[in-house]
Amino acid sequence: MKVDGVPYRTIWRGKTSGRVQIIDQTKLPFEFVSCELRSVRDAAIAISSMQVRGAPLIGATAAYGMCLAMEENASDDKIDSAYTELLATRPTAINLRWALDEMRAELKPLSSTHRVDAAYEKAAAICDEDAENCRQIGLHGLEIFRDLANKKSGPLNILTHCNAGWLACVDWGTATSPMYHAFDAGIDIHVWVDETRPRNQGAALTAWELGKHGIPHTIIADNTGGHLMQNGMVDVCITGSDRVVANGDVCNKIGTYLKALAADDNNIPFYVAIPFSTIDWNLPRGVGKVPIEERDSKEVTHMTGLATNGNIDTFQITSPGSPAANFAFDVTPARLITGLITERGAVAANALLDLYPEQKQSA
Amino acid sequence: MKVDGVPYRTIWRGKTSGRVQIIDQTKLPFEFVSCELRSVRDAAIAISSMQVRGAPLIGATAAYGMCLAMEENASDDKIDSAYTELLATRPTAINLRWALDEMRAELKPLSSTHRVDAAYEKAAAICDEDAENCRQIGLHGLEIFRDLANKKSGPLNILTHCNAGWLACVDWGTATSPMYHAFDAGIDIHVWVDETRPRNQGAALTAWELGKHGIPHTIIADNTGGHLMQNGMVDVCITGSDRVVANGDVCNKIGTYLKALAADDNNIPFYVAIPFSTIDWNLPRGVGKVPIEERDSKEVTHMTGLATNGNIDTFQITSPGSPAANFAFDVTPARLITGLITERGAVAANALLDLYPEQKQSA
Repeated sequence: MKVDGVPYRTIWRGKTSGRVQIIDQTKLPFEFVSCELRSVRDAAIAISSMQVRGAPLIGATAAYGMCLAMEENASDDKIDSAYTELLATRPTAINLRWALDEMRAELKPLSSTHRVDAAYEKAAAICDEDAENCRQIGLHGLEIFRDLANKKSGPLNILTHCNAGWLACVDWGTATSPMYHAFDAGIDIHVWVDETRPRNQGAALTAWELGKHGIPHTIIADNTGGHLMQNGMVDVCITGSDRVVANGDVCNKIGTYLKALAADDNNIPFYVAIPFSTIDWNLPRGVGKVPIEERDSKEVTHMTGLATNGNIDTFQITSPGSPAANFAFDVTPARLITGLITERGAVAANALLDLYPEQKQSA
Repeated sequence: MKVDGVPYRTIWRGKTSGRVQIIDQTKLPFEFVSCELRSVRDAAIAISSMQVRGAPLIGATAAYGMCLAMEENASDDKIDSAYTELLATRPTAINLRWALDEMRAELKPLSSTHRVDAAYEKAAAICDEDAENCRQIGLHGLEIFRDLANKKSGPLNILTHCNAGWLACVDWGTATSPMYHAFDAGIDIHVWVDETRPRNQGAALTAWELGKHGIPHTIIADNTGGHLMQNGMVDVCITGSDRVVANGDVCNKIGTYLKALAADDNNIPFYVAIPFSTIDWNLPRGVGKVPIEERDSKEVTHMTGLATNGNIDTFQITSPGSPAANFAFDVTPARLITGLITERGAVAANALLDLYPEQKQSA
């Protein structure tokens, strides 16, 4: 997507050999800067420190991490150690394992002299495929938004949680792709952007990218969606996911479950947009089964922002001495989800296999 | 309650004539300072700027605001203008109107020479009554907590939203009073404290006051409660309210509705603790009826905290240029509430009149 008129992806191969560039998302929305990864260790740190985040982008970064590993040493041992190091960065997003499996399967049969080039080719293919999948998700979601918009006067009010935007993917985004496509098609939309504590990916990232594209939006505290839904101010909810399991249960940023409950209580459609790489066919159900990452409590007790003097600083915002807990994800049961939107179309959450009949054998 | 061993209330008459002291809650949790009100205008600003907040304390401050008005000019006109000025400070908490009605009814029949002394007497009585009501709420809630604790091993995990603590009242608190009574009775409790965006009354005030009393607690993002409830980590929820209407619908800090939905979805009891002065018998139902205050969007886009250099500063946390909306309250339908706990006991939300039979005539 464009930033001030210049097209960007979230990750790309650097011009110099052995370099991969990412947008450093820990600096947004106050600074838009890219950052160079020079080793598999850099890639692992970028994922765990959340310079890159979002399930599809975590996968893409892991793929490029394997490229950097091959530049360091194109041995079988290095494939295995890089796989292990990158997989350990974050436990919840299934795209991470998917991308690493793809890379390992591509590289293992090759002789070491061919592995570097093949790795970059495969990583680029993973990125291109993700971008195309997100574009397709957008086209399918566009039709849903168009139908909803046709049933009402005034703007279509969309609520989203966290950032499932192009910043979470390679391009377009998952939940935002239908917004970009609808806006570009001239549909009158307005987006309620959940702040999304902790880490504020809504207030910092989703608001930033929607603003760059000119889409009308309003930031709200995470507590607000239920009130808006009770009072007719939300027409549709859409989020991304870090892992959808076989029965359609959706693991996503903590708090998604609460919004889905409110949507259900107010008969508001709740969609989840995902590429196929986010689906974990091996887990039969999600609640209590998907590993939920617990992150540093400092992400709850402290926050980064722009101080009065214009400098970026980190502030303590909680009562000193009080402990905090930081669960990063929750699971929304399939029964609360109106539909899943993938690159193949939209389907009821409990009918995911209908879109992927090739998985019926393995299920 | 005690702060570092010294007993405090949230509001008290100053030693000098014409002065009322409050704890300045905008400075907590980083500074514990009191602040002097010298005029009805000071009292109105203290309420609207949220130096004092919480439905019962708003009422108590309005009562003392009438005292300061009488010191300025003990005329009938001043009673009316002070009533109007104080009532306009905040729209949602019904205790504000209740306290002002009590003060006006007390003062209007008196000659102007007796009004100052009578106002202070009445304001003190309102405060004493609130403290005693909160103590009674604590004793009734204690029995509920004791029963729940007896049914399980390990600590009783209580989740609360916002601050319905002694800082929201004159003393004891509403939702916290059962916690203080249970802890003091030796029951093993642990409190999940919702951060409570915007304004962070949980992370700043509830955590601070529980910490001062030594009660084990953990601050969580507002998004977290659903996940905890799904995974057996919450035994009971309890909040306060800014206005409970005749059918038992509960207006409280924005986000309360989302937690009540999650509690309902996971069969976890959800209690709301209120003194009688929080009940609005004139509204038959709450959703769409209770006026919901919309506050300055800067409370969403900016936050106050402790900078790296140790100074308290206000910093921007959202994408610059993105608008924000700040709805302060939502309404939780009575069907989601297990029980209301008042100074008279605990009752099903839809059976509030059973506790207040004297209201049946007017209803």
